[in-house]
Amino acid sequence: MAAPPKPTRIGLAGLAVMGQNLALNIAEKGFPISVYNRTTSKVDETVERAKNEGNLPLYGFHDPESFVKSIQKPRVIIMLVKAGAPVDQTIKTLSVYLEKGDSIIDGGNEWYENTERRAKAMAELGLLYLGMGVSGGEEGARYGPSMMPGGSFEAYKYIEDILLKVSAQVPDSGPCVTYIGKGGSGNFVKMIHNGIEYGDMQLIAEAYDVLKSVGKLSNEELRSVFSEWNKGELLSFLIEITADIFGIKDDKGDGYLVDKVLDKTGMKGTGKWTVQQAAELSVAAPTIESSLDARFLSGLKEERVKAAKVFKSAGFGDILTAPEVDKAKLIDDVRQALYASKICSYAQGMNLIRAKSIEQGWDLKLGELARIWKGGCIIRAVFLDRIKQAYDRNADLANLLVDPEFSKEIIERQSAWRRVVCLAINSGISTPGMSASLAYFDSYRRERLPANLVQAQRDYFGAHTYERTDVEGAFHTEWFKIAKQSKI
Amino acid sequence: MAAPPKPTRIGLAGLAVMGQNLALNIAEKGFPISVYNRTTSKVDETVERAKNEGNLPLYGFHDPESFVKSIQKPRVIIMLVKAGAPVDQTIKTLSVYLEKGDSIIDGGNEWYENTERRAKAMAELGLLYLGMGVSGGEEGARYGPSMMPGGSFEAYKYIEDILLKVSAQVPDSGPCVTYIGKGGSGNFVKMIHNGIEYGDMQLIAEAYDVLKSVGKLSNEELRSVFSEWNKGELLSFLIEITADIFGIKDDKGDGYLVDKVLDKTGMKGTGKWTVQQAAELSVAAPTIESSLDARFLSGLKEERVKAAKVFKSAGFGDILTAPEVDKAKLIDDVRQALYASKICSYAQGMNLIRAKSIEQGWDLKLGELARIWKGGCIIRAVFLDRIKQAYDRNADLANLLVDPEFSKEIIERQSAWRRVVCLAINSGISTPGMSASLAYFDSYRRERLPANLVQAQRDYFGAHTYERTDVEGAFHTEWFKIAKQSKI
Repeated sequence: MAAPPKPTRIGLAGLAVMGQNLALNIAEKGFPISVYNRTTSKVDETVERAKNEGNLPLYGFHDPESFVKSIQKPRVIIMLVKAGAPVDQTIKTLSVYLEKGDSIIDGGNEWYENTERRAKAMAELGLLYLGMGVSGGEEGARYGPSMMPGGSFEAYKYIEDILLKVSAQVPDSGPCVTYIGKGGSGNFVKMIHNGIEYGDMQLIAEAYDVLKSVGKLSNEELRSVFSEWNKGELLSFLIEITADIFGIKDDKGDGYLVDKVLDKTGMKGTGKWTVQQAAELSVAAPTIESSLDARFLSGLKEERVKAAKVFKSAGFGDILTAPEVDKAKLIDDVRQALYASKICSYAQGMNLIRAKSIEQGWDLKLGELARIWKGGCIIRAVFLDRIKQAYDRNADLANLLVDPEFSKEIIERQSAWRRVVCLAINSGISTPGMSASLAYFDSYRRERLPANLVQAQRDYFGAHTYERTDVEGAFHTEWFKIAKQSKI
Repeated sequence: MAAPPKPTRIGLAGLAVMGQNLALNIAEKGFPISVYNRTTSKVDETVERAKNEGNLPLYGFHDPESFVKSIQKPRVIIMLVKAGAPVDQTIKTLSVYLEKGDSIIDGGNEWYENTERRAKAMAELGLLYLGMGVSGGEEGARYGPSMMPGGSFEAYKYIEDILLKVSAQVPDSGPCVTYIGKGGSGNFVKMIHNGIEYGDMQLIAEAYDVLKSVGKLSNEELRSVFSEWNKGELLSFLIEITADIFGIKDDKGDGYLVDKVLDKTGMKGTGKWTVQQAAELSVAAPTIESSLDARFLSGLKEERVKAAKVFKSAGFGDILTAPEVDKAKLIDDVRQALYASKICSYAQGMNLIRAKSIEQGWDLKLGELARIWKGGCIIRAVFLDRIKQAYDRNADLANLLVDPEFSKEIIERQSAWRRVVCLAINSGISTPGMSASLAYFDSYRRERLPANLVQAQRDYFGAHTYERTDVEGAFHTEWFKIAKQSKI
């Protein structure tokens, strides 16, 4: 392999498809890059691609020492390896050859506390560390992802010029990257991004279910509906690819491929972490939780097949008899329900980020995060610009739901939203994400909830005390004794 | 204070109200007991109560050494102190005076891994350790709680005679205690018990909300409805105390106390852990999650008041105009919705326990757990006998929903259930627990879910592959390329 004529600008270790694509992206933007992978065939593959994709300034190395030494000082190396032990292993391999002032950047979906632990260990060696969420899948990595670097600001500054160029570029809004904040904030924000992505995908799947199962839309009709939706308020990467999916025929038989895909959804961990963090931070995130639960239930395919038999044998079909629906009206209602539910889901995600930012003192800027999600990443959508505007109007907005624009949009859509959820319920199909979103909205906008009863119960059996609506203080009542006396 | 005439049978450290009551319960059953508390006034208080409540054989000690030495060997000491650091502190204080073969039992709501960590450390000193969940609140501790001891079987055997006597006694079903299993299983099972308790309380609160806000029932009517319900399938401690609560007048003013209780619900941690464990174990637990979220949202009282103003100013009241309802019919519908939702909630809780049991090799018996929850504890209910029967019929039952009895009951109630949730939705009040339960049911009993679309999306943007309905294997499609070509 050709050696670089002079030290390269940056290095990248870990050449699975994301790593390869990001390296090619960096090289294409004019930054000479050194690449390394433990399985050396991946190195050769990447070098070959760099040649074929325009003789890009990318240089491959089969051993870590020459890889590290080929990079200009202070060196910066991006790792794109699996979260967990492989990251520790890669750090161990590389750090032997690194010198004080060099930087390591973890570009994977790492748990934020692992990043903070490593940053501390690296600091002891005089090395800088960043945990950088990268979203956009393979295509994004190659042509412009959304990047969420957090940790050492000094390290960020070393590569800011590169990140500004390789990230997705959104007209009037700039490159989809910003310095997120200290510690593991980059990983945390990416984790919530993925949680929101889970929510978006679930809500779209529910829209599909209602349209297909109740509205009886064909794949061709679905394709056309989602294409149409992608021209309006729902315009987004996920709506776009959903339209694409409905158009693709099965290459192994008749019909459409989507109908042959097994209804079992996999997952990788970030959705789970989001739900666990929501509980930890005391932030309600029912839409995101419902999307995780939907994945769990999808995984129980064999149990579901058996359960369906049990209930069918009792004359209880998959789909219950629902009232006749007007297709055009249904499509319009579902669009509105999807949009309103989406607002709730993002409200939950943004509030999770704020709660963590306060807990950790990260000082994260919610509007700026919405900005860098406008392009490159999986949840990119015209909708994110509206979120950015909401935080521009009021950086301390307690909840997206009470932003003047969003509250107006929800009020306009709430009737359709209620119609869709009730139609689904009466048809016996579930819209867990949409109904969780609706319950979230109806709880949040409600001055008085029935939580007084729960608190009275807690005081009854556990003497947990309660507050009153009219007098300050903590009160305890001997409910049991009073009730017993009145029964005598 | 009087010294015991001979070594006592057992010791108890930690004399807050739960500890006092459990100690008095043990003494009353004829087991001489030594008690100790760091704040010595609590010791005197307990001794005084023992005298007043029937000259019970209870002996107080102001210092840990004489406390420990007053107990017969091998000594057994129950701790009832706050989970976390206070437990470690108490162990440290007591273990100085303990000898090989002695046992310590933690009766608090401890995180199960803490118990396992302590059991290991104790084992190194030759001491035995149990983590024992105790449910029943103050009353239960005094007159018969449900007890969930897990850990050293040897330690369990030392006090089995005591536990069998002090625990709640259920006719035809025996004492509400059993050896749960190894390790931290006793704490884990208690944690899930509490998660189920959260679900029960939330579902009852929603029933209350629908009846009050939509059905316009007065507190007196509510009291009568819950009393009536407590004679049938819903018969349970929580329904009973709910009826009591509606009957209690405000001692600080006019009207009923429940209306003066602030709608902010507190919590202690076990609900949070349950939700986090559900995510960890890949078990859907939407009803329990919704109950935790409802507590979080209840806590945002000030935000809710503001949000209500925002939406009211747009002509959007707390309660939307709902169709006129027939009160008697509504009451009957809500009862059915509550019962059906409860089945879903318990199905989730039991499946959480099974998943953990498999993960840890605890070999827990679900039917036996249902049996010991029939009395003493907060979730005690006639319903638990049905659960026990379901597992007696089939110990490997995949889900309570497919038990022949429960599936029949759900089918009978599903129309009412759907009516209640839709009525709530159309009235603008939220029934997050009932609707999450319904979505859980409709997802679990459905052969085909829209998860195929989610998996297609994942393969589209992340090459995560998918399975097919017709051919074995993992497949990847170049969705983007195919879609691009078809667009040209």
